[in-house]
Amino acid sequence: MEPAPLHEISTPGRVAAAGEGIGPQELALATRNHGLPLEALRYEVTPPGLHYVLVHYDIPAADPGAWRLTVGGLVRTPLALAPADLLARPAVTLRITMECAGNGRARLNPRPISQPWLVEAVGTADWTGVPLSGVLAEAGIRPDAVEAVFTGADHGIERGVEQDYRRSLPLSAATAEDPQVLIAYAMNGRPLPPQHGHPLRLVVPGWYGMAHVKWLRDITLVDAPFTGFQQTEAYRYRQAPEDPGEPVTLIAPRALMVPPGFPDFMSRVRIVHPGPVRLEGRAWSGHGPVVRVEVSADDGRSWADAELTPPGAHRWAWQSWQRTWSATPGTHLLTARATDADGRTQPLEQPWNRGGFGNNLVQRVPVLCT
Amino acid sequence: MEPAPLHEISTPGRVAAAGEGIGPQELALATRNHGLPLEALRYEVTPPGLHYVLVHYDIPAADPGAWRLTVGGLVRTPLALAPADLLARPAVTLRITMECAGNGRARLNPRPISQPWLVEAVGTADWTGVPLSGVLAEAGIRPDAVEAVFTGADHGIERGVEQDYRRSLPLSAATAEDPQVLIAYAMNGRPLPPQHGHPLRLVVPGWYGMAHVKWLRDITLVDAPFTGFQQTEAYRYRQAPEDPGEPVTLIAPRALMVPPGFPDFMSRVRIVHPGPVRLEGRAWSGHGPVVRVEVSADDGRSWADAELTPPGAHRWAWQSWQRTWSATPGTHLLTARATDADGRTQPLEQPWNRGGFGNNLVQRVPVLCT
Repeated sequence: MEPAPLHEISTPGRVAAAGEGIGPQELALATRNHGLPLEALRYEVTPPGLHYVLVHYDIPAADPGAWRLTVGGLVRTPLALAPADLLARPAVTLRITMECAGNGRARLNPRPISQPWLVEAVGTADWTGVPLSGVLAEAGIRPDAVEAVFTGADHGIERGVEQDYRRSLPLSAATAEDPQVLIAYAMNGRPLPPQHGHPLRLVVPGWYGMAHVKWLRDITLVDAPFTGFQQTEAYRYRQAPEDPGEPVTLIAPRALMVPPGFPDFMSRVRIVHPGPVRLEGRAWSGHGPVVRVEVSADDGRSWADAELTPPGAHRWAWQSWQRTWSATPGTHLLTARATDADGRTQPLEQPWNRGGFGNNLVQRVPVLCT
Repeated sequence: MEPAPLHEISTPGRVAAAGEGIGPQELALATRNHGLPLEALRYEVTPPGLHYVLVHYDIPAADPGAWRLTVGGLVRTPLALAPADLLARPAVTLRITMECAGNGRARLNPRPISQPWLVEAVGTADWTGVPLSGVLAEAGIRPDAVEAVFTGADHGIERGVEQDYRRSLPLSAATAEDPQVLIAYAMNGRPLPPQHGHPLRLVVPGWYGMAHVKWLRDITLVDAPFTGFQQTEAYRYRQAPEDPGEPVTLIAPRALMVPPGFPDFMSRVRIVHPGPVRLEGRAWSGHGPVVRVEVSADDGRSWADAELTPPGAHRWAWQSWQRTWSATPGTHLLTARATDADGRTQPLEQPWNRGGFGNNLVQRVPVLCT
């Protein structure tokens, strides 16, 4: 056969037509990647295999013995670190709630075509590693450096651009003391699983998942803002293709509920019996602690405050909330919404953008009480 | 609101209309459950979190301390076993390839509406537990018993029927010496993760996943074939709704390939460069060892034998295969097909049935060589 031009297999981003169902390409992503089954919100720390996973290209085959993390560019002393070199340093463990920037995309109308998340692209883990700031200090940051560019080992094509996955952080964020950015080698006390970046990944508390570069193999300091694909083409809030847009950065507030009662297999509608029903879930924001969670049993016409656990020792992890609801026979649409210390509240109308990023529209849980 | 009748939220099985895209209910299942990213075929034992998961209802909240597995019905001595009682017995570990009976469903035309798997609902793990036959012998099988019925703790509604997940095995299979059915408490040397049946599950070598009852809490011996929902309504090969159909039992043969080269993010089409390309993957069957794997680079018009690893010590686990392909510029459709010792070969045309079970149509991997 004649070669297909690259632009036929790697096409521009697009938005679904009215009524267009999820197509084969979106389905292929949905069967590879996976979210948190919502009943797993019951666990403060998400057990292995239930944390969301989004892989842009392939999970690389990593040999931890041969792996080197190089640190170069505008540094005084370039480094080449083996995972064992990092394991020998004082370890820091942070409990972090991580969320995909595309969470909620498939609920948008019209729907941007990409990984079709509903609300479940989230998870919380204990990440262990070393502070990035210490590694950069050891390399010696030259005064003309303004950003650090992080390169992962996953390689592919996206909208016609062949690339290793690559993202940057401003040096102010990369070297901050609070929150501390980690180069992590362990998740929940065990070596990173392959799909979460084995042997090394970046962990950036409060930021959406695209910043937490997995399979980290290089850090390069540069003297101008990075303009790579994942920084300036993807991961922008824009209304039209030609719009430069705003960068996707911190996680918007969100509350999620453990769906109460039990489900129908196919519709996932919940069945509860009349009487008191404990509603509970988790809430988080990258902009500050969550200060309020409200619950509605009538699709947002009326709201009542839930009891909310303060952030405590794990500032960058989700907080738990609960409230008892008196279920009466009928169908109900349950919802919850979070407000953070920065004054941000989840919207009741979709915050549409062309990439389908940061859609923190409130979750809606249909319940039949019989 | 007035209660919705149950039949409005828990509807009969159906088949998609011509051109009907994946709908919101199928998507909700696809984001909860997940398959094996195909590059993870590189691992002989699937790492945690990459093994396929299919949960009918919710993952139950299990307290292993309070958990009891009851054994009753047509036995001489009913038992109530704690997980610790099983841990105290001699352990057996089996490496098992497990596959969802619905694997391949979303490739059928017309498409049965349910969990929309493509080809990835598979995984291989080392399962540790105790032989079911020993537990049944301890309880004392009465001569009138013909089947063992296994009840899991997951509870829900399916096509209008409220149920705990429940399946049976003939006693001949339940007490066989080869293959041995296990009551498993560990996966890959660690306690079962919640989504894989914590604290106890059944493992039935060679059978599709529906037989491996998770969150196992009861075994009841009965004197007639079990006619519960998951035995006689679901998991039947049928062409029409009124057809009684044949039961879904052993895994049909399948070979899968690690997609070569690197992918486009959205289309998942692979890019390779001209020259020798190593094709490799795994193959398995529940009917006997795989005895032949063939590879085609022209969508099945011509075939060449791959080098196949014999089953060796792990008879119920997948076997690896490989062959070098000389890539030439152009587009190619790569495929592989397995043949087992029972003489079964993967079909080149879809083996359609109304539930979308056992579709082992050959995988097709589109590749662009540039």
